[in-house]
Amino acid sequence: MGSPIRSNLQSGARLDLSGYIKGIEASDRIVLSRAITLIESKLESDQLLSDQLLQKLLPKTGKSIRIGITGIPGVGKSTFIEALGSYLTTLSKKVAVLAIDPSSGYSKGSILGDKTRMDNLSKNENAFIRPTSTGGTLGGVADKTREAILLCEAAGYEIIIIETVGVGQSETVVRDMVDFFLLLLIGGAGDELQGIKKGIMEMADGVVITKADGENLKSATQAQSDYHHALHLFASPASGWKPKVLISSALEQTGIKETWEMIEGFHAFTTRNGHFEKQRSQQNKSWFHTAIEGYLKYQLLQDPTLKNKLEKAELQVIDGTLSPGVASRQVVKEFMASISKT
Amino acid sequence: MGSPIRSNLQSGARLDLSGYIKGIEASDRIVLSRAITLIESKLESDQLLSDQLLQKLLPKTGKSIRIGITGIPGVGKSTFIEALGSYLTTLSKKVAVLAIDPSSGYSKGSILGDKTRMDNLSKNENAFIRPTSTGGTLGGVADKTREAILLCEAAGYEIIIIETVGVGQSETVVRDMVDFFLLLLIGGAGDELQGIKKGIMEMADGVVITKADGENLKSATQAQSDYHHALHLFASPASGWKPKVLISSALEQTGIKETWEMIEGFHAFTTRNGHFEKQRSQQNKSWFHTAIEGYLKYQLLQDPTLKNKLEKAELQVIDGTLSPGVASRQVVKEFMASISKT
Repeated sequence: MGSPIRSNLQSGARLDLSGYIKGIEASDRIVLSRAITLIESKLESDQLLSDQLLQKLLPKTGKSIRIGITGIPGVGKSTFIEALGSYLTTLSKKVAVLAIDPSSGYSKGSILGDKTRMDNLSKNENAFIRPTSTGGTLGGVADKTREAILLCEAAGYEIIIIETVGVGQSETVVRDMVDFFLLLLIGGAGDELQGIKKGIMEMADGVVITKADGENLKSATQAQSDYHHALHLFASPASGWKPKVLISSALEQTGIKETWEMIEGFHAFTTRNGHFEKQRSQQNKSWFHTAIEGYLKYQLLQDPTLKNKLEKAELQVIDGTLSPGVASRQVVKEFMASISKT
Repeated sequence: MGSPIRSNLQSGARLDLSGYIKGIEASDRIVLSRAITLIESKLESDQLLSDQLLQKLLPKTGKSIRIGITGIPGVGKSTFIEALGSYLTTLSKKVAVLAIDPSSGYSKGSILGDKTRMDNLSKNENAFIRPTSTGGTLGGVADKTREAILLCEAAGYEIIIIETVGVGQSETVVRDMVDFFLLLLIGGAGDELQGIKKGIMEMADGVVITKADGENLKSATQAQSDYHHALHLFASPASGWKPKVLISSALEQTGIKETWEMIEGFHAFTTRNGHFEKQRSQQNKSWFHTAIEGYLKYQLLQDPTLKNKLEKAELQVIDGTLSPGVASRQVVKEFMASISKT
């Protein structure tokens, strides 16, 4: 399988397994970036190589704090992440920022645009910044970003920041792959909670009100109080941790140190009570099962004999002329018949 | 496939396809109940028959209002549903109540116990009450309950109430199969929102504070105001509908008519703006795709050659010695190899 002759996505000769391993162990950012490209590849031969790579590096993974950061466009996510990342490097921490693109291509331009805005951080040798593709349907967003996290950890990154583009679908997926989930919000402008998709705030371990400077400071402080109240209306999350609400100004560099202290506090608290390890184990288990379903579905979608059948069934399901349950069983049976014929 | 001689789960001779169809079209509750047992069956021959039945009845489905009702134990769910259901029958509506058992067996006793508590409603000839099993792993909770909804609709039930047992896992699944999602809460006792799992309130189209009578009336009214405030802190749901908070006493039969008026109001509002049909189509599409994954996974789990492999892989994934992504691809590849050998 795989084609013997093909062009490389990246310039330069292709690396073999030990080339990738050595480069990642040496924390070589170019090799790390190419390894992420490798795991995102849909070529069968690349998949085999990336599975070997991931398995080899596995003992070196898991030692970071994984932080998910979300917020609506305009909240100043990139600016905040740059400020937080830069601060962390002054503490001699190595920081990786992975930006998730749930739209699988079409908004890649804008995300890369975001990345180039993190000017200072991207020049910092202790930082690694990279958008990660969803890799189409192969296990969805989670599959490839989760594996990119493992590669960054193996390369010695101690803090991994997963940035969502805040389109609304990726938040729960990101929530399931990080230790700490941070929601960025803006204060002021009438209804303080305008635009917050239902349920997102419920997943947060912490909230930061951004742009808390100058004339915005007063409304940010008001929003802090409102959100604090709103968060505490609900029962505590499984971690036993009480979500905190902070204010921050990237302009005046306030609230950045406090954000990191909050995350460190969460880490210490949940390590002590066992939640940190427990959540990681649960995430691994649920990743495994979701990935089985995703990969099975991927195999089915790849089957050329099923393409028409599937499209037709979906249309009938949507217009109500075919029962979804019946349709799904028909499609799966045809898929299995198709495999056993090969 | 299937065994030619076997005992029936129900007493009486087995029905054939036309027997089921005739019985359901005549709104025969015993036939309807046996049809639900049929669709829950894991026997291959029963599955074939139930697929034929569902497909035949499909044109007669979809015309009900589907209502999901959830709430923590002690909130008085059964009492409330009995009061609401009885009220609806006085409006000459036919009402079906399906109770979901997400625990797939172990708490069935208590659910059946609940059902027998709906004494008046169960004696009403315009009502149909039945627990539905999750049917193990075959597409999970959703698969069989969704199909039970279709059977009830074909039997002429105009209002289908899906009752969750409120264990915390079934709510999102139920939310995805109903038109209107109702959350029952109790007022009083200090923190009004104690015990509400994060995210559940966010899914609600309406909230009813139960047991609003006697000494509880004051705290129920206070809770109504608090929840009203909390719900309106968040952005409006996709429906454009603003969730309402009502108070009710099953004892004094207050708030029951108002609950139905709220649901009717929602139905009229979302029918006008197109959300009702749109949500149904989206639910069908997502059911189809989830069912494909669920049924594929079921086939994999049924494969006897994979059982040990799967268990071992899961343990390694949980203890961190095998990458979940790598493990999932290994398992799926072995499954496909196993099929092509047969």
